[in-house]
Amino acid sequence: MQAGKPILYSYFRSSCSWRVRIALALKGIDYETVPINLIKDGGQQFSKDFQALNPMKQLAIIEYLEEMRPTPRLLPQDPKKRASVRMISDLIAGGIQPLQNLSVLKQVGEEMQLTWAQNAITCGFNALEQILQSTAGIYCVGDEVTMADLCLVPQVANAERFKVDLTPYPTISSINKRLLVLEAFQVSHPCRQPDTPTELRA
Amino acid sequence: MQAGKPILYSYFRSSCSWRVRIALALKGIDYETVPINLIKDGGQQFSKDFQALNPMKQLAIIEYLEEMRPTPRLLPQDPKKRASVRMISDLIAGGIQPLQNLSVLKQVGEEMQLTWAQNAITCGFNALEQILQSTAGIYCVGDEVTMADLCLVPQVANAERFKVDLTPYPTISSINKRLLVLEAFQVSHPCRQPDTPTELRA
Repeated sequence: MQAGKPILYSYFRSSCSWRVRIALALKGIDYETVPINLIKDGGQQFSKDFQALNPMKQLAIIEYLEEMRPTPRLLPQDPKKRASVRMISDLIAGGIQPLQNLSVLKQVGEEMQLTWAQNAITCGFNALEQILQSTAGIYCVGDEVTMADLCLVPQVANAERFKVDLTPYPTISSINKRLLVLEAFQVSHPCRQPDTPTELRA
Repeated sequence: MQAGKPILYSYFRSSCSWRVRIALALKGIDYETVPINLIKDGGQQFSKDFQALNPMKQLAIIEYLEEMRPTPRLLPQDPKKRASVRMISDLIAGGIQPLQNLSVLKQVGEEMQLTWAQNAITCGFNALEQILQSTAGIYCVGDEVTMADLCLVPQVANAERFKVDLTPYPTISSINKRLLVLEAFQVSHPCRQPDTPTELRA
């Protein structure tokens, strides 16, 4: 890592921020949070100052952390397992989340938002549930926590927020439950961030 | 690589397939194409047979190829440059393409399709043009062809298909032009694939 504490520009409820927070917690990297409110002022992420800084994509941050601080590893040693981890991560971070994020839902319009988000998530989860049946152990890929798990938990939280019925996804649900009890997933949880509003704290 | 020729399930016009074809060409990996027509029969990708096979996300394939066949390298040796390459790749493959792919445009409805696709691409290209100003050399990141370039060229082709005005993106445009003359980008081009319809061949 660079000298000085790394800064995470974060929004408590953002699933993308949460992914990175889990990675930082797992790797024991101390960091400073600078909250970016994605709603207030029409979205602080659109400010000129932030646009100049914003590296935009979070899997790239996680891959970078992995290279700079390789233990504990978030990518398995075996290349095929590593490909599975990246496939699952990309499926969530590239195939589900972008379709149900704030700016897309704004475009879709208020009336259609919920259906649109539910549709994006169920399409993705149908594929994911099937994939996990051949890759999962205790967690998404085998028995170690990987980048795929960092993507899974925040996406399940989004699914719950959009009232997606999770009963067709027993594998997703049980992996999610096993992950949520781990400390790194708890300290990074949206309900425990510096910018979490009091009424949402737990 | 595994024994036997690898099989690429490919659609001539898919920007995701094209990315992988460029990687295979650059690395000199001989492969067999099995065409999957994304339009015919309501989309052959939805068939049961294909769903069981489909690894879904193409950046994971490229990362896997990179590990199995490291030369020529598609990720720079320097970790910061590597992070830039992944950031740009994710921005395109996770932030632009998923918002303007076939299945999303179908949901958006015929009337709004063009505006929607143009909007997704210009939002992404605004960010990308700015990022490239600090990362680009001859190509997206420095002077070597990387995974970011494999993502750029097919996305610019999509932009042209959706009639996006590229004049605000001089960096994107000139990198695209420099890449299109390279052999790997030509042999993998949508107009030269086994499943390219005769009227679109060049």
